[in-house]
Amino acid sequence: MPKYTPPVRDTRFVLDHVVGLDRFANLPGFQNATPDVVTAILEEGGKFVAEVLFPINQSGDQEGCTRHADGSVTTPKGFKEAYKAFVESGWSTLAAPEEFGGQAMPHVVSTAFEEYMISANMAFAMYPGLTHGAIAALLVKGSAEQKAKYVPKMVSGEWGGTMNLTEPQCGTDLGLIKTKAEPNADGSWSITGTKIFISSGEHDLTDNIIHLVLAKTPGAPDSTKGISLFVVPKFLVNDDGSLGARNTLSCGSIEHKMGIHGNSTCVMNYDGATGWLVGEEMKGLAAMFIMMNAARLGVGLQGLGVAETAFQNAVQYAQDRRQGRALTGAAEPGEKADSLFVHPDVRRMLMDAKAVIEGLRALCLWGALQVDLTHFAPSEEERQLADDLIGLLTPVIKGYGTDKGYDIATNAQQVYGGHGYIAEWGMEQYVRDARIAMIYEGTNGVQAMDLVGRKLAQNGGRAVQTLFRIVGEEIAAAKADTATADFAAALEAALADLQAATIWFMQKGFQNPNHVGAGAHPYMHMMGVVALGLMWLRMKTAAHALLAAGEGDADYLNAKLATARYFAERILPETMTLRRKIESGGDAVMALEPRMFEAA
Amino acid sequence: MPKYTPPVRDTRFVLDHVVGLDRFANLPGFQNATPDVVTAILEEGGKFVAEVLFPINQSGDQEGCTRHADGSVTTPKGFKEAYKAFVESGWSTLAAPEEFGGQAMPHVVSTAFEEYMISANMAFAMYPGLTHGAIAALLVKGSAEQKAKYVPKMVSGEWGGTMNLTEPQCGTDLGLIKTKAEPNADGSWSITGTKIFISSGEHDLTDNIIHLVLAKTPGAPDSTKGISLFVVPKFLVNDDGSLGARNTLSCGSIEHKMGIHGNSTCVMNYDGATGWLVGEEMKGLAAMFIMMNAARLGVGLQGLGVAETAFQNAVQYAQDRRQGRALTGAAEPGEKADSLFVHPDVRRMLMDAKAVIEGLRALCLWGALQVDLTHFAPSEEERQLADDLIGLLTPVIKGYGTDKGYDIATNAQQVYGGHGYIAEWGMEQYVRDARIAMIYEGTNGVQAMDLVGRKLAQNGGRAVQTLFRIVGEEIAAAKADTATADFAAALEAALADLQAATIWFMQKGFQNPNHVGAGAHPYMHMMGVVALGLMWLRMKTAAHALLAAGEGDADYLNAKLATARYFAERILPETMTLRRKIESGGDAVMALEPRMFEAA
Repeated sequence: MPKYTPPVRDTRFVLDHVVGLDRFANLPGFQNATPDVVTAILEEGGKFVAEVLFPINQSGDQEGCTRHADGSVTTPKGFKEAYKAFVESGWSTLAAPEEFGGQAMPHVVSTAFEEYMISANMAFAMYPGLTHGAIAALLVKGSAEQKAKYVPKMVSGEWGGTMNLTEPQCGTDLGLIKTKAEPNADGSWSITGTKIFISSGEHDLTDNIIHLVLAKTPGAPDSTKGISLFVVPKFLVNDDGSLGARNTLSCGSIEHKMGIHGNSTCVMNYDGATGWLVGEEMKGLAAMFIMMNAARLGVGLQGLGVAETAFQNAVQYAQDRRQGRALTGAAEPGEKADSLFVHPDVRRMLMDAKAVIEGLRALCLWGALQVDLTHFAPSEEERQLADDLIGLLTPVIKGYGTDKGYDIATNAQQVYGGHGYIAEWGMEQYVRDARIAMIYEGTNGVQAMDLVGRKLAQNGGRAVQTLFRIVGEEIAAAKADTATADFAAALEAALADLQAATIWFMQKGFQNPNHVGAGAHPYMHMMGVVALGLMWLRMKTAAHALLAAGEGDADYLNAKLATARYFAERILPETMTLRRKIESGGDAVMALEPRMFEAA
Repeated sequence: MPKYTPPVRDTRFVLDHVVGLDRFANLPGFQNATPDVVTAILEEGGKFVAEVLFPINQSGDQEGCTRHADGSVTTPKGFKEAYKAFVESGWSTLAAPEEFGGQAMPHVVSTAFEEYMISANMAFAMYPGLTHGAIAALLVKGSAEQKAKYVPKMVSGEWGGTMNLTEPQCGTDLGLIKTKAEPNADGSWSITGTKIFISSGEHDLTDNIIHLVLAKTPGAPDSTKGISLFVVPKFLVNDDGSLGARNTLSCGSIEHKMGIHGNSTCVMNYDGATGWLVGEEMKGLAAMFIMMNAARLGVGLQGLGVAETAFQNAVQYAQDRRQGRALTGAAEPGEKADSLFVHPDVRRMLMDAKAVIEGLRALCLWGALQVDLTHFAPSEEERQLADDLIGLLTPVIKGYGTDKGYDIATNAQQVYGGHGYIAEWGMEQYVRDARIAMIYEGTNGVQAMDLVGRKLAQNGGRAVQTLFRIVGEEIAAAKADTATADFAAALEAALADLQAATIWFMQKGFQNPNHVGAGAHPYMHMMGVVALGLMWLRMKTAAHALLAAGEGDADYLNAKLATARYFAERILPETMTLRRKIESGGDAVMALEPRMFEAA
């Protein structure tokens, strides 16, 4: 019953006016991304996901994955055919290097496509999503032989990839890993242990699955410094590229979970499975973080992607469903009731969604641009600036983006009233699917601690100072223009709150790090609000300029202006309370001993 | 895997020190509620729900209800036996009048028990919960004959009751009802139509189900003024009280929904079913609002009840699960990792939950006291004051209470990390169950509009002025005591925000009611924060007094003081941003035409 239309116009607007894609046309990684090609990718990619992936989203949720007695896993009806079409159309290869069969598109372009894929079918999108993370790690840390052996077929989508970190006793704290790697005489390793929550761990979409597995080698220290990364294929791969013996690893069970039922979340048992070291021994964590950072941005995109679909349907339902009358008098006196759309509280939920979704889209794409610039920017200084920005913003995109994605899905469901709670209408699935994004690839609390505990302090605070400088400069420029002065002033107040909180952390963190930890989550939200504020300032500025020049669609641009105003009035003031929470410190937060929580 | 312990000590503290139950001991409705009896009810009732209802909560969710080909519905395994035990132990009869077989306990006492029942098994609790709502309507609006015929067996729990309002085309807007009532020669009516989302509509727990059904009589106006209420039993009842013919009504299907799977949510088809008018023709809405107001308070209690269980489990998990190290250095160097409990962001989530849950418990019970006082207070003035307060606070308890219940359940799930997403651990059920409470008995947006559109303005704002006066007086008293002066000052600032927003509504509502509508939801939250602030002021004051007197459990009372501080530092400042949102008005909220929401 729900519908999805890829927001191509909005993506294009962001690429042109926030990301400024054309300014980078001469950089090496951007040569293939001419405006026409990018538009074609957005349009054709959007069409593909809407026509092929979206129709199996709800049925995939209802059916889920099935594990058979032999340990094999069947994905929901239609997934196999859709995946085949996905591979054959080449959508798997967008951002991969040409030497491995990829199209070498900038990350920012593939990110735009990935948003659509998630919106259409988050559970499906996770299969290629995990593969891309595994490719990234192999490309950076794998040997030439490993790259040649695995990467081309992962790029093409013939083979899948996974990340195997979590074990029953450890999630966040990977120092507790028990999976063992014993050296074999031939240079391979024998991997033994149990991994849990392995997304796409076993399925019927690909001929082979290339597992990247964290394990401990003999004598390795009992901490994150003792972890190594191994590539452990489901089927061993012969030197000619053909599939060899079945490796001794298997899916022990699939989890019954709240959502993303179309993705197989597996318990994976490694029983002396043959694997090969990726990179150096005991440097596995660094290799894993390559996957992890990419995955975190991908998860942030899940917050956006699911929210977009939920929002689109809520907008439509608000127009279709008639209930009650406008406060200002009947809007359609000829009908028995007005549409939900006339009610201010319904509009509040829709505008909240629109303001945050469009801001997040801009932030995700601007963030993806930074990933490209870390590789392709012409100077070391520019590459470092991009690296600083994306390092700082990764936990914000992941943590703030997925918190808001869940809120938006919840509000979109709310617009439906009782029908929102009924499976048939599809809205409750979005809430259940969006929920996981706040948890995996590091819970949002872990993101918040990464932000305030690591990213703020790195290199003497260089990254956050860079962000403050950029926001400050764009505010200063915008204040000089009457069209943008009001918005700039509102953003300036929010920035001042963020800066004050940052200084507060610097002063109080020395006294007691719990003061910083207790403010981490509000701080992450505050930076999310300010980052979205910067995005909205750029969008507002561009919309004014286009309208003044008589270019573009006036409805669309005027909607941007009105939504920017909404953002300034309704979202930016959130920093006031967030700052107060942060500046109250950690004493009350940490005051109670365990026994003092007892209620009975 | 999850557990539940009834928070008897906290309930007792609220009854003694917030509600002040002993002050009302001489009132007619309170005579049976001696301190010993109340304590026995809390302890025995808590024991019953923990031992009988809680063990079938998770299994009931997993199994759900089953509709058979003949239209009959089977509840999950164990529900029937549990219900039998519930009836036999007399828990159904707590608050009902003695003349109908009840124990005539004050509403505040039965509310305390209901919280426990919801915490143990929300889906189960809805069966007697709906019956109690139907009893309330029959007691006020039913004829003597109707009361005699139906109420005693509903009180005993032998028969169930339901509310039939919603139809496919109407939920909030009951003027759109199509169900028809045609008069029969014998004074009965013939009811024809389809009702949807009927909780407990058909099941195997009781011998009969007494449906209260809204329908339109011939020639009735096409608005809420044309609605009449009918009692329509599943089995007709003979004059001797025995069951007669099966009525022509049936369950057409049960809904597949996000949660509360243990409760049968039915499509009910009335095919010329025999019913009898309750109260006057075309005065059905007023009768329905008797049920509705009781139901709204009950739904607010669901927010609290589910949050409490989720919270208790998160507290335990945070102590059991070891992951990472304290920021201040290893708390337990002998272990491989510290418990989650050491992490400030985990504690933030637990303290948020504790501060809001304990505040909500106090508010729900204080609200329930007002319901009692509307009946039993000695003077008309006191009865009216109680009626004003509970009228004002009903949408706040329902709307704010269930929004927060969902937030708390979500955060409790978050504490579990990946395990929170897995059905086996039980936490995701609480989120799914809590979600419905924001929707039914009037969505929280409808509650917000009831608050700002009706309750604020009624009788020249008398109710809200009463609330302001009470809060203001208690602040003034608390400021005079150094132990409570800081908290009082923080509450005073929040109250000032609420008062300013109220005045803003008065000034701007005349210009355009959308200014009020656009601020309704933030205002409801703001009043929730201030109302909880009043509750915390009372709890803090009492804790200080008890500690000074050397009475009570020091850990428990010190936890109250620390949590009050947390509330002052972390929750009260929310009014700042809420006020700003309200005062931005409705222009940006209402700016976009439907076509301007188009994304593509």
